[in-house]
Amino acid sequence: MPKLMNDADAYVDEVLDGLILTDARLAREGRAVTLAEGARKGVAIVSGGGSGHFPLFVGYTAPGFIDACAVGDVFAGPSVAACESAIRAADRGQGALLLYGNYGGDKMNFDMASEMVELDDIRCETVLGTDDIASGGAEEADKRRGVAGLVLLYKIAGAAADRGDDLDTVARITREAGANLRTVGIATSSCTLPGAPGPSFTLEAGKVELGMGIHGEPGLWRDDLRGADALADEMVERLLADPVAQRSGRVCLMLNSLGATPLEELLILYRRAAARLEEAGITVALPMIGHFATSMEMGGMSMSLMHLDEEREALLRAPSDCRYWRV
Amino acid sequence: MPKLMNDADAYVDEVLDGLILTDARLAREGRAVTLAEGARKGVAIVSGGGSGHFPLFVGYTAPGFIDACAVGDVFAGPSVAACESAIRAADRGQGALLLYGNYGGDKMNFDMASEMVELDDIRCETVLGTDDIASGGAEEADKRRGVAGLVLLYKIAGAAADRGDDLDTVARITREAGANLRTVGIATSSCTLPGAPGPSFTLEAGKVELGMGIHGEPGLWRDDLRGADALADEMVERLLADPVAQRSGRVCLMLNSLGATPLEELLILYRRAAARLEEAGITVALPMIGHFATSMEMGGMSMSLMHLDEEREALLRAPSDCRYWRV
Repeated sequence: MPKLMNDADAYVDEVLDGLILTDARLAREGRAVTLAEGARKGVAIVSGGGSGHFPLFVGYTAPGFIDACAVGDVFAGPSVAACESAIRAADRGQGALLLYGNYGGDKMNFDMASEMVELDDIRCETVLGTDDIASGGAEEADKRRGVAGLVLLYKIAGAAADRGDDLDTVARITREAGANLRTVGIATSSCTLPGAPGPSFTLEAGKVELGMGIHGEPGLWRDDLRGADALADEMVERLLADPVAQRSGRVCLMLNSLGATPLEELLILYRRAAARLEEAGITVALPMIGHFATSMEMGGMSMSLMHLDEEREALLRAPSDCRYWRV
Repeated sequence: MPKLMNDADAYVDEVLDGLILTDARLAREGRAVTLAEGARKGVAIVSGGGSGHFPLFVGYTAPGFIDACAVGDVFAGPSVAACESAIRAADRGQGALLLYGNYGGDKMNFDMASEMVELDDIRCETVLGTDDIASGGAEEADKRRGVAGLVLLYKIAGAAADRGDDLDTVARITREAGANLRTVGIATSSCTLPGAPGPSFTLEAGKVELGMGIHGEPGLWRDDLRGADALADEMVERLLADPVAQRSGRVCLMLNSLGATPLEELLILYRRAAARLEEAGITVALPMIGHFATSMEMGGMSMSLMHLDEEREALLRAPSDCRYWRV
C-alpha cells in the first residue's frame, strides 16, 4: 500500500512535529517527547521504542500514562541520547521507572542512559514488557518480547505514580501486572517500511501466521487462513495455557488491530473469545477494542489478557487523559 | 488482505454481537442498536447507515452522541424496519433528530420509517450529512454525500440534546454546523467486501485518487502518488475554496484514516495542513487524529474542516462518553 509521506528520512521527525501540534501538553527535545511540567506528579514513567507502532509508544505520553518517550527510527530502538533526555526531562526528584519492551537494542541503550543519569542521582528502576507468548515460554520472561500489552502496563504504572506510590512500589506493582499479562497475535499481511522497495516480509495470500512479532519476527505456525472463531479459540487456549502468577476470575481483554484489520473484525473475534473465557469461568471486566499498538499497515491483530486483582482493576479504571486509550 | 471472519452472511450480526458484549450500555433489537434507558435525556438523536465504516455509524451509540443506530449490511443502507425500531427505541416523547449521510437508499428508508412513527405522534426532523466536496459543489448540498464529518455532527447534536434544547433547536444547530463543515479525502488502495471474490475497485500501485467516496465512488482526479505535503496543500486549498456559511478564525480539523493508513501518516499530513491553515489566518482549536469513519481496510484518509463559532466549539468540547471519540 502506498505511503502518505514526504522524504523517508524525515518520516519520524515529521510524525513528531505533527504530534506536538495536535497536543499542547507535549514538548519535544530531539527524539525525546515529554509531557509539560505540572501535568504529572511523583515518580516519572519513561518509555521508548521504535517508530511505526503508533499510538505505541509516544502516543501514550499523557496524563495517567507515561511522562516521556524516547523515539527511535521506524522499527529501530531509540538512541542512548534520546533515552537520557527523556529520563532527565521526566524526573521530578522521585526517580524514574523505565518501562519498555524487551528488545536487545532498546535494553542496551536504556541501560546506558540510566547509568548516565544515576551519576546525577536520578534513580532508575526498569520493568520490561514481556507479554508475547510466541517468543518464549512461561518460564522464559527474558526471551519473551514486549508487544501490545505494554499499553496496559503504562496505565497501571501511571495510575500508581499518580496516587503517590514511591518508585519501588510503582515498579513492584507494574512488574506483578506484567507477570499476569500475556499476548498472542496473528498476522495476515505485511507492512512496508518508509523508503523500502517492498514489504518487510512475505505472507502468501490466504495464509495466516500465529504469533508473528510486531516487526515480522517468525511466529508459531503459518497455515491457511481459518474462520475467525477457530482463530479466537486457539488464541484463548494458548493464552490460558500459559501459567501466570495469579489467575483470577476477572480479566482485561484487549483486542488490538495491527493496522489494516478493521475493528469490525476484532468485534467478531471478541464475541467468540469472551464466550470461551466465560466457559472457563473468566469474566471480561475491561474489554478494549482498538488500534493500540500497530505495525504500520500490517494486517492482523493481537489479543492481550491481563488477570486482574482488585488493585490492578482499580488502576486500569483510574482517571487519565490520553486520546489513544479507550476502556 | 484476508479478512478475519466466519460466514460472510453472518458478518454484520457477529460484529453487532461483539459490540454489545463490549459495552453494557448497549442493547440490540435486530439491526437496531440502542443506548440503555436513562443514559440520555431530551431529544433523541437517531442515525443509521451501512456497515463497513466502523466506528461510524453504530460505534457512536453512546452518551453525548447518538441514542440509536439502524445498521445495514456492508456498504448498504439500513432497512425501514431497522430505522423504525431505532426511532421508536430512542424516542422519549420529545421527538427524534434523524441524522445520517446523504445517500438515496438511506434517505428513502428513513423517510418511510419517519412516516410510520409519526402516525404514533413521534415527531421527526431530518438533517443529512453532506460534507463531501468531491460529490457536489458549494450550492449543491443535495448532491454532496455524507462522509467522516458526520461524526462531528453527532457530537454537536448530542451535546445540544444533552443540555435540553428542543427538537427544532437541535435540528437548527446541527444543520448550521453541517453548513460549516466540509470533507475531502484521498484513497491509495481498495478494500474487499466480506465474501467478495476481490477488491471493490482497482487503484493501480503508486496511484492516488482525490475525492474518492467511502464506497469507492469516483473522485475528482486519479494520478501518480505525490508527497504528503503536496497532498495536504491541495486538500486544504479545496476545503477553503468551498464557501461555507460562516467562515471564522477557528476550526476543528479532523484527519481520519480510511482503514489501513497508519496514524503516523495522518500526523505528517496534519503538520502541513495546520501550517497552511495558520497562513490563511485560521487556528485549529480542535485537532482530531484517528480512525473515525473507515471503509474497512481501504488505504487513504479524509480531512474534515468545521468552522467554529462559540456555541459549536462549546458543544464539541462538552463532556461525553464514547470510546471512539477523541479530542
